[in-house]
Amino acid sequence: MTKTDIATRVYNHSWKLDPIIRSLIDTDFYKLLMLQMIWKLYPDVDATFTLINRTKTVRLAEEIDESELRDQLDHARTLRLTKKEAIWLAGNTFYGRSQIFEPEFLTWLANFQLPEYELSKKDGQFNLQFHGSWMETTMWEIPALAIINELRSRTVSRSLGLFTLDVLYARAKAKMWEKVERLRELPGLRISDFGTRRRHSFLWQRWCVEALKEGIGPAFTGTSNVLLAMDSDLEAVGTNAHELPMVAAALARNDQELAAAPYKVLRDWNRLYGGNLLIVLPDAFGTAAFLRDAPAWVADWTGFRPDSAPPIEGGEKIIAWWKKMGRDPRQKLLIFSDGLDVDAIIDTYRHFEGRVRMSFGWGTNLTNDFAGCAPREIDGLKPISLVCKVSEANGRPAVKLSDNPRKATGDSTEVERYLKFFGQEDRIEQKVLV
Amino acid sequence: MTKTDIATRVYNHSWKLDPIIRSLIDTDFYKLLMLQMIWKLYPDVDATFTLINRTKTVRLAEEIDESELRDQLDHARTLRLTKKEAIWLAGNTFYGRSQIFEPEFLTWLANFQLPEYELSKKDGQFNLQFHGSWMETTMWEIPALAIINELRSRTVSRSLGLFTLDVLYARAKAKMWEKVERLRELPGLRISDFGTRRRHSFLWQRWCVEALKEGIGPAFTGTSNVLLAMDSDLEAVGTNAHELPMVAAALARNDQELAAAPYKVLRDWNRLYGGNLLIVLPDAFGTAAFLRDAPAWVADWTGFRPDSAPPIEGGEKIIAWWKKMGRDPRQKLLIFSDGLDVDAIIDTYRHFEGRVRMSFGWGTNLTNDFAGCAPREIDGLKPISLVCKVSEANGRPAVKLSDNPRKATGDSTEVERYLKFFGQEDRIEQKVLV
Repeated sequence: MTKTDIATRVYNHSWKLDPIIRSLIDTDFYKLLMLQMIWKLYPDVDATFTLINRTKTVRLAEEIDESELRDQLDHARTLRLTKKEAIWLAGNTFYGRSQIFEPEFLTWLANFQLPEYELSKKDGQFNLQFHGSWMETTMWEIPALAIINELRSRTVSRSLGLFTLDVLYARAKAKMWEKVERLRELPGLRISDFGTRRRHSFLWQRWCVEALKEGIGPAFTGTSNVLLAMDSDLEAVGTNAHELPMVAAALARNDQELAAAPYKVLRDWNRLYGGNLLIVLPDAFGTAAFLRDAPAWVADWTGFRPDSAPPIEGGEKIIAWWKKMGRDPRQKLLIFSDGLDVDAIIDTYRHFEGRVRMSFGWGTNLTNDFAGCAPREIDGLKPISLVCKVSEANGRPAVKLSDNPRKATGDSTEVERYLKFFGQEDRIEQKVLV
Repeated sequence: MTKTDIATRVYNHSWKLDPIIRSLIDTDFYKLLMLQMIWKLYPDVDATFTLINRTKTVRLAEEIDESELRDQLDHARTLRLTKKEAIWLAGNTFYGRSQIFEPEFLTWLANFQLPEYELSKKDGQFNLQFHGSWMETTMWEIPALAIINELRSRTVSRSLGLFTLDVLYARAKAKMWEKVERLRELPGLRISDFGTRRRHSFLWQRWCVEALKEGIGPAFTGTSNVLLAMDSDLEAVGTNAHELPMVAAALARNDQELAAAPYKVLRDWNRLYGGNLLIVLPDAFGTAAFLRDAPAWVADWTGFRPDSAPPIEGGEKIIAWWKKMGRDPRQKLLIFSDGLDVDAIIDTYRHFEGRVRMSFGWGTNLTNDFAGCAPREIDGLKPISLVCKVSEANGRPAVKLSDNPRKATGDSTEVERYLKFFGQEDRIEQKVLV
């Protein structure tokens, strides 16, 4: 006999909306760390964030219904920090440190609301922008990306039958578990989930995170997703992102300030945080330029996160620099986080084993890898290279060069100016998949 | 088409145990407040807690399988405070006060484990006892009661078909909702859930609590269940219980100390807590005796919880005492919590309206009222009067007289001695249903 719980069924079928974002802390932990710094040091800076789809062949505005997108963005704007979340942020230990968030900051955050958005369509793409105070607009990056990516998945799901869906997820689980088994073979591996922004869906990310927790145990060092960290008693991980040097550079009033910008934000960071949070993200305007001009104290920081150079070449250059600066790389940490999958993780791990401390931030290929899982190839299941980047600060254009020219963002004239200023050394063109 | 999620189905069907208690904070809030006091002031006292089934006609050991009971008790002993729970206890505000729990206490609690139990059967009843340190055995009261009550419900559920079960819960929900509608008519009503110990099941308690939250809004002032308070962002409520004066009286070495015992624990309490937590529970050895001998400062406390006298008579006597002591009852609080249902709540509310502040702790009739809901009368669905009381402290017998002789507990010779000592004034025999 089949039994239907009528109330549940009617409830499930009469939702006006199945929200993608159900919590303000369904975001990356580094956003909160950066937010506190912005709130404290840059409360008067305006910043515009802009959605950029680098996978031009995917015409997002044709795959996703604009009104559905608006409904999801509007719903995210209704969210407030819950009491339990506020208590957890105040009381939890992050990176071994208690009270990493100041009480005044949390009081402010308790009333936080995502600001308004501007949405239009052009040439099959969405033009989505967030204008306003940096300490408000910055919080849109992750939910905006997660919403668009999950709406893409839902478009696909609607076209599939129940058994096809069942088999799709069964295969994706089997595929994920094979990765888990390969990772288990690396002793002392440290890996964490960085996959919120490009996840297939919230529920699928949660499944992957819980599978890693069960599957690789202590090698799984945490998740960047604050909500999942809270709910699953995992460490929340992540430090800072490109928006810090990008805004600092955009605000520079002369060449001297522009040259100093990448290091100024590190000084700012160090005023608020220490220890394992002192991770340098060196590639905003090219890692070679960053290392060439870095003040000596940068070598005191705990580690680097090479994010756009090929991991082995990128890591070697940082190790060489540490040696030049008289540091022992075995005391230092490299965090790899650029488009990793299991092969790249294993190769990188084997290459550097014993020479440097390593940690891997596993993103899109953890939380959105359905390749080969559908009964036929479905384009909508392929992750795209979607980002939401700061594009202006106080009305001035913000730019990222990156170690990979294909990951550069910003106005092309301005990119040219930065390239002349910082130089092009060691920039390597690589295909950007995610 | 019917769709079965095979992994979920197999998982559900292969549980060795469906745990009744899944969290150490699935308990009453007052246990934690009392625990902190015991931990701080009485860490060396031993106390035995004993299960007492006052509904002798129900032969528990015939309704419930002993090995199932052992499995549930054993499972509860595997529980530890989770990180999220510890953070929430440390960071949440209780009764408007932050950090009500000392950091040292929470550190101790983080390693807390329920102690061993002694279980045997005699004459169709379970003989269940917890021996050891008071600050360990006290924590068994609520989970032990909740486990036995839910095992009774499960025995019934197993005998019912799927549609019968569906109709049973549908009717129970309808019945509950009628109560909600009647309570809505009382302006300024303050009512909270006190129903953990005698709940039909955890899931049903959660349903009732969430229904009250939606149904009566701000009139629902919280739940005594700490886990539900955390998960549903409700206030955790409750202050202290009879075990405090019972242990203090058992430890008294002479008549002078026995006479002082009920007030000594109030002084202890006041060393740790203040404000709305200053609620007197006057009936351990009879309310009349308590008021007769009470020091003047007892009238400074915020309120009384008459727990075994009929609510209207009991309340009137306390109001008369406040007036005699020169206090304005309208500034004082009466908390009614003895076997209430909607009729008693409404009568009591109407009787005292405008003359005293009132609050209602709604227990068994909130979380375990299935009368008339089953297609035929099922004895196993009727709540029983089951308690788990302190019976010895440091090897000396512990006794409760109560305002209702049928609620007295303890060795009968010792009860006689206490009755002679405290007197029998105003004790009224009433049927004890729950």
